[in-house]
This record gives sequence, C-alpha cells and structure tokens, in this order.
Amino acid sequence: MIIDGKQIAADIRRELRAEIEALLREGRRAPKLAIVIVGHSPASETYVANKLKACAEVGIEAVKLAYPTEITEQTLLTEVHRLNSDDSIDGFIVQLPLPPHINETTILSAIDYRKDVDGLTPENVGRTVQGLPSIISATPRGIRELLARYRIPTEGKHVVVIGRSNIVGKPMAILLMQRPYLSLPNMSAASLGDATVTICHSKTRDLAAICRTADIIIVAAGSPNLLTADMVSEGTVVIDVGINRIDDPAAPRGYRLVGDVDFEHVAPKAAYITPVPGGVGPMTIVSLLQNTIQAYHEHTR
Amino acid sequence: MIIDGKQIAADIRRELRAEIEALLREGRRAPKLAIVIVGHSPASETYVANKLKACAEVGIEAVKLAYPTEITEQTLLTEVHRLNSDDSIDGFIVQLPLPPHINETTILSAIDYRKDVDGLTPENVGRTVQGLPSIISATPRGIRELLARYRIPTEGKHVVVIGRSNIVGKPMAILLMQRPYLSLPNMSAASLGDATVTICHSKTRDLAAICRTADIIIVAAGSPNLLTADMVSEGTVVIDVGINRIDDPAAPRGYRLVGDVDFEHVAPKAAYITPVPGGVGPMTIVSLLQNTIQAYHEHTR
Repeated sequence: MIIDGKQIAADIRRELRAEIEALLREGRRAPKLAIVIVGHSPASETYVANKLKACAEVGIEAVKLAYPTEITEQTLLTEVHRLNSDDSIDGFIVQLPLPPHINETTILSAIDYRKDVDGLTPENVGRTVQGLPSIISATPRGIRELLARYRIPTEGKHVVVIGRSNIVGKPMAILLMQRPYLSLPNMSAASLGDATVTICHSKTRDLAAICRTADIIIVAAGSPNLLTADMVSEGTVVIDVGINRIDDPAAPRGYRLVGDVDFEHVAPKAAYITPVPGGVGPMTIVSLLQNTIQAYHEHTR
Repeated sequence: MIIDGKQIAADIRRELRAEIEALLREGRRAPKLAIVIVGHSPASETYVANKLKACAEVGIEAVKLAYPTEITEQTLLTEVHRLNSDDSIDGFIVQLPLPPHINETTILSAIDYRKDVDGLTPENVGRTVQGLPSIISATPRGIRELLARYRIPTEGKHVVVIGRSNIVGKPMAILLMQRPYLSLPNMSAASLGDATVTICHSKTRDLAAICRTADIIIVAAGSPNLLTADMVSEGTVVIDVGINRIDDPAAPRGYRLVGDVDFEHVAPKAAYITPVPGGVGPMTIVSLLQNTIQAYHEHTR
C-alpha cells in the first residue's frame, strides 16, 4: 500500500484550520510564527514563501523578518533574544543556511526551546531524549504522524534507521525507541515508540542482512537506490526520506526527484511504502504548523 | 579476559593527579567542584563523602554545600544560578534524589551545561546527540574509557545496548553510533563510535537472537541474570552495568552484589567481560573527576 503523504498533509491542514477557527470563535488570538531570513538565496526565499503560504492557509499569523547578508552574528543574536522575549510571538525559525561568517550553532542554541518550532536546539533534542515535553523536528514528527495515521504499530517491532543525521536519523531513532511519552493531539490510537531500533550508517557492515530482519525501514541516507528489493523482506514497512535529483533528459526540467529506495522493485514486497515525491516531503511543512500550534498552546496556557 | 575497572580507575586517578600537579607547578589554580546536597539521606551522604575523597586524592578542590530538607525549590534554584555565575567554581553537581517537593528536572535544567559535570542537563544531552562539545554522563563516559583502554574497537561493530535509561542506555547508544567527534585527552588510539547500534528494552521481542548477532553487548537493565550464556556468541565483548542486591545468607551483610549478566557461564565465551563489582562501577567517580577537569580547561581557557 502506498502511503499518501500529500493526502495526509492536506487532512492535517484542514484539521488545523478548523482548530484555529475554533480558537478565534472563542475570542482567542491566532498563533503567530516569525521566520528569520538572512540574505537573498533564491532557494531559501522559495522555502520561506511556501511556509508563509501554508501558515496563511490554516490561519497562523506569520511574519517574515528579512536581514541583509552583512548582518553581524552579534546583531542576529540580539534579534534572537528579542524574539525570545517578544510575548506576541509563539514560535520562530531561522531559515538555514546562514552566511558563512555567522555560526549556525551559536544562533540556533540561543533560541528559547519553547519557541524553537524547528526543534533544532540542543535543549529540545536533549529534552526529547530524556522524555520531557519537547518540540520534535519536522521530518521525524512527520514520519511519526504518517505511521500513526496509517495505524502502523511500532511497539516491539524492529525498526532499522539508515542514516544518523542530526535532523532525521538520530531523532527518529530516539523517538521510536522511547516509551511513548509524547502522545500527540489528534493522533490515532496506534502505539508509537517502544520499538527495538537499529541505527545504521556508512560504517555498517552487511546492511542488507540487518534490513532483512526489519519490520520497518526508515531510509535517510541521501543515496539513490540504496535500498534494493533483495534487502527487504516481504511485508516490511518502508519510509523513504531521501530526495535526490538525478539527470533525466526526458523530464521537463532535465532531472527528476528520486528517493533512497528502488521504489519500483521494493514496492511490490512492502506492506506500506512512501513514494518520492509525495510521501514524507509534504509532511515537513505540516510539522512546522503543528509545532507552532503546540508552542502557542504552551505559551498561552 | 576480565576487564579490570578497579585497575583502570586507579590508573586514571594517578594520571589526573599528575596532570593537576603539573598545572599547579605552572602556577595555575586547581580545578574546583561544588557538590550540592539537600537533606540527610545516609546513602547520599556516603556518595558525597566518596566523591569528596576522590577529589582530594587527585587534587581537585571540592566543597560540599549542604542545605536543609525544607529548602524551597525557588531558593535552591537561586543557589544553582549563583553557582552558574560563580567564577571560582568550574563545575558542580546536585546530589540526587531531591526531596519530593522539589522538581528535579527544574533544578537540573537550570544548571549551566558548561558546569554540568554530571552531564545530565537536556542541553548537554542534546549537544552530545548533535556532536557538539559536551559533557558526557558518568557511566557512558566510563564505559567508553574502558573500551578505549582495552583497545576494543567499535567502528563497524554491532553493539547491542539493553536498557534505555536516560543515564546509561540512551546516551551510550548515541555515543557509540556517532562519528567519533569527541576525542578524549589521554585516550588510546582505539576508534570509538561508528558502531551499528541496536537498542533493546522490555518491549523487545527475541532479545536472545539479537544478542547472538552482537560483537559488543552492554547490559543496563537492572535485572539479575538477564544475559545468559545461550544469548552470547563466542568472542563477544560483554559490559555489565547492572548492580543488583540479592539475598545471600552466607555473605557477611546478608546480601551480595551481582550484575545483569550470568557471569559464571557467560565469561568463558566472552572475549572481554566486566565483573560486578569491579568493572563499570569504579569508573563512575573517575568520570566525574575527568568531567570536572574538562570543565576547568574550558572555563579557564
């Protein structure tokens, strides 16, 4: 069965819009997100525009705070502190990458974890590890939501995570191995967490043998066709986080997007599988919206 | 081969003493640790006394700050903030448990991560996950040191961690799966990290089969005889973190300490194994000393 991330993302956006409309009817203010962008990278501008549009659709008030490329680290840090203490802002994100003269870790670490709706501060990551209330970064939160909406249980299952990045592999492994402390609002009854998790990466030996023992495989390695049919047992759930451009003269833009999974040959064996595009991808902006509303509820409680 | 934690701990204490003597000869001050204790639990008093003694042996200046059981959370929080900004203190710990009217998470989270020589703040845990310079909690740091001193490589090895506690299982899994960012001073050339890690717990199915595929098994489940000989392949490295009291009328105190491993039957199959007592246990205070000196070097740099 193909997991339709586009449909799930649309469902959630509709639910969030209804939730915010209800808040407004109760006389409460709308959640408010600030997006900090430095410089004029066309890619960053597009991402920010998409986020602003998604906020508008569900009723989150969103403001873009644009700064020149020449801004100093110190001035940007001051802006972060200002946003931390601005009571009208429920959450904010700093669009990455930043110019090379600014240390991204310094900036991200300065964000108050309660407003860190990208879930990238060390404080939020540590709170997640310790099972404390926290904000989860976009991709792991989106994958958890897909599993929940398709009622795919994880308790006692063997989950193999391929890739150990800070934004996907490591937080994903942590969430799935945990006791399910963090019950999400609007979530199905599926029990998430409590999985036996193996985390694999470039140094792993005999990846194929490990994958064949998995009930669920989450691939976030950034390597086209890494997961092939011979590595997957019948009935496995396959979540493909990869987004790779490969040349394709026949495609309108000269390239097409593929994941890390050999979809054509793996899909017939998989119980569930996410396509690329249209699987995990559409969930990431939705996670940002959910995180903003979560921060709003905490902030206005 | 039996891993002699007592011997390694003594070696490290001797190295640390030499290091501090050299600092003093250069005219620098000694590292300084503060230990906060609330109330009068005999167990806590003993732990604190042992820590003070260990500090004295290597030349770390240590002060005990004792507060009455009735101290309010707010007053204790004020003390934490004072210690955060006291420039003469390189690191401090708050002896747990705290009285029930004080929220431990609130207190621990308030400690500046640079002075958090127990490595328990969410900020330090998150920094560890993200591969940033951080302070590692005592048991994982001690185990890493044992592996390094015995030159047991972890790169590409399959490590099975049994137990997902905040103080052992989860940080241990994270350290071993990481790229080896965090090279320790005085450490052997053994490559630590870069392992394929499986984390198992009470919900894991067929633990025995998973353990039989392991090159290294780290057991931190708090369950006597959990790991039996049939679960261990020939040549496995076994690290036993368990400390369990079991009744033994023949023992002088009426009980004896055992680990989570059936040592008698597992040891003959293991390439290396830690005993209980005398394996991981003696390393934990040494880790506190190492963390204090690490914080000192960062603080006085």
